[in-house]
Amino acid sequence: MSRVVKTVRSVADVRSAVRAARSTGRTIGLVPTMGALHEGHLSLIRRARQECGFVVVSIFVNPTQFGPHEDLSRYPRPFNRDVHLCDQEQVNLVFAPDEATVYPAGFATFVDVQGLSSRLEGAFRPGHFRGVATVVLKLFQMVAPDVAYFGQKDAQQVAVIRQMVRDLDSTIEIRVCPTVREKDGLALSSRNVYLSDDERSSALALSRCLHAAKGLIDTGCRDGDRVRHKMRAVLESAPGVVPDYAELVDPVTFEPVGKIMGPVLATVAARVGKARLIDNLPIEPTR
Amino acid sequence: MSRVVKTVRSVADVRSAVRAARSTGRTIGLVPTMGALHEGHLSLIRRARQECGFVVVSIFVNPTQFGPHEDLSRYPRPFNRDVHLCDQEQVNLVFAPDEATVYPAGFATFVDVQGLSSRLEGAFRPGHFRGVATVVLKLFQMVAPDVAYFGQKDAQQVAVIRQMVRDLDSTIEIRVCPTVREKDGLALSSRNVYLSDDERSSALALSRCLHAAKGLIDTGCRDGDRVRHKMRAVLESAPGVVPDYAELVDPVTFEPVGKIMGPVLATVAARVGKARLIDNLPIEPTR
Repeated sequence: MSRVVKTVRSVADVRSAVRAARSTGRTIGLVPTMGALHEGHLSLIRRARQECGFVVVSIFVNPTQFGPHEDLSRYPRPFNRDVHLCDQEQVNLVFAPDEATVYPAGFATFVDVQGLSSRLEGAFRPGHFRGVATVVLKLFQMVAPDVAYFGQKDAQQVAVIRQMVRDLDSTIEIRVCPTVREKDGLALSSRNVYLSDDERSSALALSRCLHAAKGLIDTGCRDGDRVRHKMRAVLESAPGVVPDYAELVDPVTFEPVGKIMGPVLATVAARVGKARLIDNLPIEPTR
Repeated sequence: MSRVVKTVRSVADVRSAVRAARSTGRTIGLVPTMGALHEGHLSLIRRARQECGFVVVSIFVNPTQFGPHEDLSRYPRPFNRDVHLCDQEQVNLVFAPDEATVYPAGFATFVDVQGLSSRLEGAFRPGHFRGVATVVLKLFQMVAPDVAYFGQKDAQQVAVIRQMVRDLDSTIEIRVCPTVREKDGLALSSRNVYLSDDERSSALALSRCLHAAKGLIDTGCRDGDRVRHKMRAVLESAPGVVPDYAELVDPVTFEPVGKIMGPVLATVAARVGKARLIDNLPIEPTR
C-alpha cells in the first residue's frame, strides 16, 4: 500500500502542520505552484527535498494573476496526478486552498512592486505581477516557510518576488532553480499542452532566439540593439509565432541593456496558437 | 541613577532583541508611533505593558503617508523626550529606524487596501493609507510582534490595518484603545502643538459636533442625513474652522450610513490654522 501525501485546504491546517514540523527543528521549504506539475516543478521539489526537513507544495491557480481574456478557465488542473507526483517526491504536505480561502468575500488588499511590474511581461499582462506579488506574500504568510523555491523560467516573476521580499522585510530566503527543457530546447511549461505538433515545432523559435543572443555575445558582440535585432529576426522567421517581445535586459531591473558590460538576460514572449509562451536565458559575457 | 530604555535603529537589532524575548516565552507587544508622544500614545503603551511581557515602541515619522503639501518637515520630533517617556513607562525596547533603513534606495513595493483607502481621509489625503498600510506591514515584518496597539483616534487607519491583516493572512492581533481627550473634549494629537490659544478654542468644534451626533441618535434619531446635517452645522458655526468632512459611516467599511440600524461612527476632519485635525466617536443606538 503506497503512502499518500497529506493534503490540507485550510490556513489553520497548514499552519498547525508547519508549526509541528518546526518544533522538531526542521527547516520548512515551500514550493508555490499552480499545479499541472512538470519536470520543472519537480526539479524545485527535489531541491527543496534535499535542503529542507519539511517540504510544502502549494497548488493554487491564482485568479488575480490572469487578465480578463487569458486562460484562467482552461488552465490545466490535473489535481490527482499532481498529488501523486508530490507523493512520489516525498513531499510532506500539499496545501491546496480553494479560492474563497485565499480571496474571501470583501478581499481588497494588493501588493504592488512598482517599476518592475510594468515592464515586459507586466506591459503585456497588466495587473499580472500585482496578482503574483499578492498571492506569493499571502502564501508566505500562510505557510511561513524558511525557504521558498521558484523557477528561472519565470525570471521576471523571480525579480518581482526578490524586490518584494527585500522591500517588505521578509525573512524568507528565495532560491531559484534553472529552467528545465525538453531535449530540443523547448522550456517546460504547463501551457505546452495547448500546442499542436506543428505549433510545438514553431515554438522552438523561442529558445533558438535566446541561443542566437548568446551566440552573438559569446563571439564578442557588446551591442544590445544588435542582439535584440537578431533575436527578433529569429523569432519572426518561425511560422505561426506572434512575438510579444524579444529583449535584452538587466537581470535585476529588467530595463533594456545598451552596451553589454556584465550579466544580462535575454528574454522572450510570443503567442503560438492558443498558447502564450515565455522563455529566457541569463548570459554572462566572458571577456 | 535611572534606567535607560534600550534604543535600536537597525532591523537586525530589533529582531535579535525580540527573538531573545520570545525565547523566554514572553508575549511581544508593538506600539507603532510617529513619536511626539502624548497621553494617547501612553495609554497604548500602558495597555501593552499590562498585557505583554516585552513591549516595543517604534518611533518613525513615515514620509510615505504624508502628501507633498503636508506637514512632514515640521512634524514634531522631540526624540529625547519620547525615549524618556518610554523609559518611564518601562518599555523594553525603542525601535527608531532612520529613513534609509525603512525605505532603502530603490524601494518600490506598496500595499494598497482598495476601497477603504479612497474614502474620507483617503479622499482628502491621496496615498495616505497606502503609506500607512505599507509602513505598518513593514514594521510587523521587522518586529514580528504577537499583538499591536493602535488608537481609536485614527479610526479609519485602524479599519485599513484590520482589513490588511485579514487579507494578507497576518497572525498579529490588533488591539484598539479609546481616544484620550483633554478635559474640554479636544482629542489628543501630536498636531495640537500647531494651534494658537484661539485656534485651540475653535478646534473644540470637532468634538462638539461628534457629541451633537450622539445626542441626536441617543434621543431616537435614525436618519443619517439629519445627523450629518447637524454635525456640519456645529462644525461650520466655529470661527476659523475649515471643514474637510463631517460624516456618519459604517465603522468597518466607512461607507455613509443612511438609516441607522446598528453601531455607527461619527467622524470629522477640519483645518484649524496650520493644523489639520481629525476626530471620531463610535455611537451605538440604544433602542
